[in-house]
Amino acid sequence: MSVTTPTGFRAAGITAGLKASGRPDLALVVNDGPDRCAAAVFTTNRVQAAPVIWSRQVLADQRVDAVILNSGGANACTGPQGFQDTHKTAEVVAELLGISAGDVAVCSTGMIGELLPMDTLLAGCAQVAGELSGDGGPAAAEAIMTTDTVAKTAAYSGPGWSVGGMAKGAGMLAPALATMLVVLTTDAQVAPADLDAALRAATAKTFDRIDSDGCMSTNDTVIALASGASAVPVAPADLEAALTEVCADLALQLIRDAEGAAHDIRIEIDSAATESDALEVGRAIARSNLFKCAIFGNDPNWGRILAAAGTTSAAFDPATIDVSINGVIVCRDSGVGDDRALVDLTGRDVHIVVDLKAGEESATIWTNDLTHDYVHENSAYST
Amino acid sequence: MSVTTPTGFRAAGITAGLKASGRPDLALVVNDGPDRCAAAVFTTNRVQAAPVIWSRQVLADQRVDAVILNSGGANACTGPQGFQDTHKTAEVVAELLGISAGDVAVCSTGMIGELLPMDTLLAGCAQVAGELSGDGGPAAAEAIMTTDTVAKTAAYSGPGWSVGGMAKGAGMLAPALATMLVVLTTDAQVAPADLDAALRAATAKTFDRIDSDGCMSTNDTVIALASGASAVPVAPADLEAALTEVCADLALQLIRDAEGAAHDIRIEIDSAATESDALEVGRAIARSNLFKCAIFGNDPNWGRILAAAGTTSAAFDPATIDVSINGVIVCRDSGVGDDRALVDLTGRDVHIVVDLKAGEESATIWTNDLTHDYVHENSAYST
Repeated sequence: MSVTTPTGFRAAGITAGLKASGRPDLALVVNDGPDRCAAAVFTTNRVQAAPVIWSRQVLADQRVDAVILNSGGANACTGPQGFQDTHKTAEVVAELLGISAGDVAVCSTGMIGELLPMDTLLAGCAQVAGELSGDGGPAAAEAIMTTDTVAKTAAYSGPGWSVGGMAKGAGMLAPALATMLVVLTTDAQVAPADLDAALRAATAKTFDRIDSDGCMSTNDTVIALASGASAVPVAPADLEAALTEVCADLALQLIRDAEGAAHDIRIEIDSAATESDALEVGRAIARSNLFKCAIFGNDPNWGRILAAAGTTSAAFDPATIDVSINGVIVCRDSGVGDDRALVDLTGRDVHIVVDLKAGEESATIWTNDLTHDYVHENSAYST
Repeated sequence: MSVTTPTGFRAAGITAGLKASGRPDLALVVNDGPDRCAAAVFTTNRVQAAPVIWSRQVLADQRVDAVILNSGGANACTGPQGFQDTHKTAEVVAELLGISAGDVAVCSTGMIGELLPMDTLLAGCAQVAGELSGDGGPAAAEAIMTTDTVAKTAAYSGPGWSVGGMAKGAGMLAPALATMLVVLTTDAQVAPADLDAALRAATAKTFDRIDSDGCMSTNDTVIALASGASAVPVAPADLEAALTEVCADLALQLIRDAEGAAHDIRIEIDSAATESDALEVGRAIARSNLFKCAIFGNDPNWGRILAAAGTTSAAFDPATIDVSINGVIVCRDSGVGDDRALVDLTGRDVHIVVDLKAGEESATIWTNDLTHDYVHENSAYST
């Protein structure tokens, strides 16, 4: 299960030499059609990497023939030269594949503020194009890893059609999106507008609801490609459900592999007046360093959950909130509830439920704890 | 220099037995007049501790005769019983001093979600009232410490009058205010409205601009008391300047003693269109865990500064930002600047300057790095 699971796609992943580690660092995904329908969502950060600016233009006509992705450098904050480098990469890939540069999306991930070694990268483009194959999806997924410890792929199987996907991302995960590159493929026959709508709906409920460390990247990109090779017309609702399933799978893989994390935390906000209120409260809790440290220490310190909720403008009575941690209602009506010693936090999965008693909406945010290893990885990342 | 530096004040600090450590945990500050003028600012968190709710009522008539402060328990999220306990504490202190309970402010700090051991606390009140003296300020400052490693006091000396102050706070520091209790005293002759205005102006420029970990407390309180004992009428502008100086001194002491911090970081945002824009950008950077981890690792990773700035709505062109770190302009026009290897981050003080090139306003936010020790202290705090 990968981007080459659906028919009509080839992919490859190779070591171009962009990473000091010598690990794979260049991936290529090609849509062989007959359709070349595409949709994408990008980071909402105002500081955007050159490949984001480029790919946004490429997506304007809702057609993408190929996506070239490199790790080992984000090509962000690299000025006009950085943009020229992205443009050149697309041109070289287009020439190798006999397509137009305007149909080649580019994604980069790695350190901000450094130019890519173009000779190395362009030589790698020739190599990766030469290795394209119908079962190259797993190699492509491996080549986009940065601090990820495992490659992340997923798939959905429908009647006569399918969806495949790959993702990278382990830190700087925050809405909207993460330091995250995702390519989704499907052989469904779909109209561009339906693909776009389905992708936006799917990411809003999945990638936009994971928040590893509250930091928003300059490079986030999720691209969906549809080949139509199955010749099966798929209803918009079915497509949305399939993309949502694959995105949710990948999003959870991202959280489970978040930098240094020791606990995966599911924060469920119930009985909110609006879904937006539920999300605001969930995100505030997910971004509380004190809460995240407590969970790392297996400490059901629910006071930090209330303190975080209290910073929001969501509708609720601050005196009537209930909080449960792994099934134990440790806080009732914003006061002491059942014995906190009953809470078992020794496992990896943590389930927080906050009952706002303000309405009938709910939402779930996924995050992870704040650990020594997170500090270590992120203090040593560029040195 | 302490809360008993100005004339007209007595204070004391004792060990009541609220802390498992056996360290001092109960402080009392009394204004002997002739004036009992008072002003205060409180946390803006909607989840407010019982003593905050109580003291807000006490301050309504701008008169406070005494402030009783305990560490070893925040009395937050403790429901009606918690409020009754605060009320009872004020009544007992009032009886001991022969004053009205409605003129006794109460401050608490420590764990959220636990009731205070009232027998211990009330016995302590009798003891601390018996130890009041004109040089008890330092003992009071020591008794309000939680994870602070040093007691924090400051003073300002004017012609014939003075200001004194004490503060506690080491984690959960964020605007507005911190997990922070501050008592300021002055023997100046001032009108209540002038004291209130001066205090609000002073805290807005000082305590509101430190952001240790982005977490906002349920208990923050800054109370200013004026005795008029110097018989020197002080102009509002002079009072504001004096309070600002003392608050700035205490605020920097808080940052320098922030939990686990290894670097004190001054983030200066220049050439902003508005002061509010400058503050928004400064706070976004101060709250970036990735940036804070990089500084811990002595890593001048300026890309994380731009990524944080890019999440704000402040007016600027994302392509023209300059960033300097400890005097080295590592980023010019949002691209690579001078050699980052020239940046020396081995010292404790770090000075970030972000030039937005969007106007003529500026602001400075103080924060600290994110370290192994922060994670350790906050994962083990309640266990």
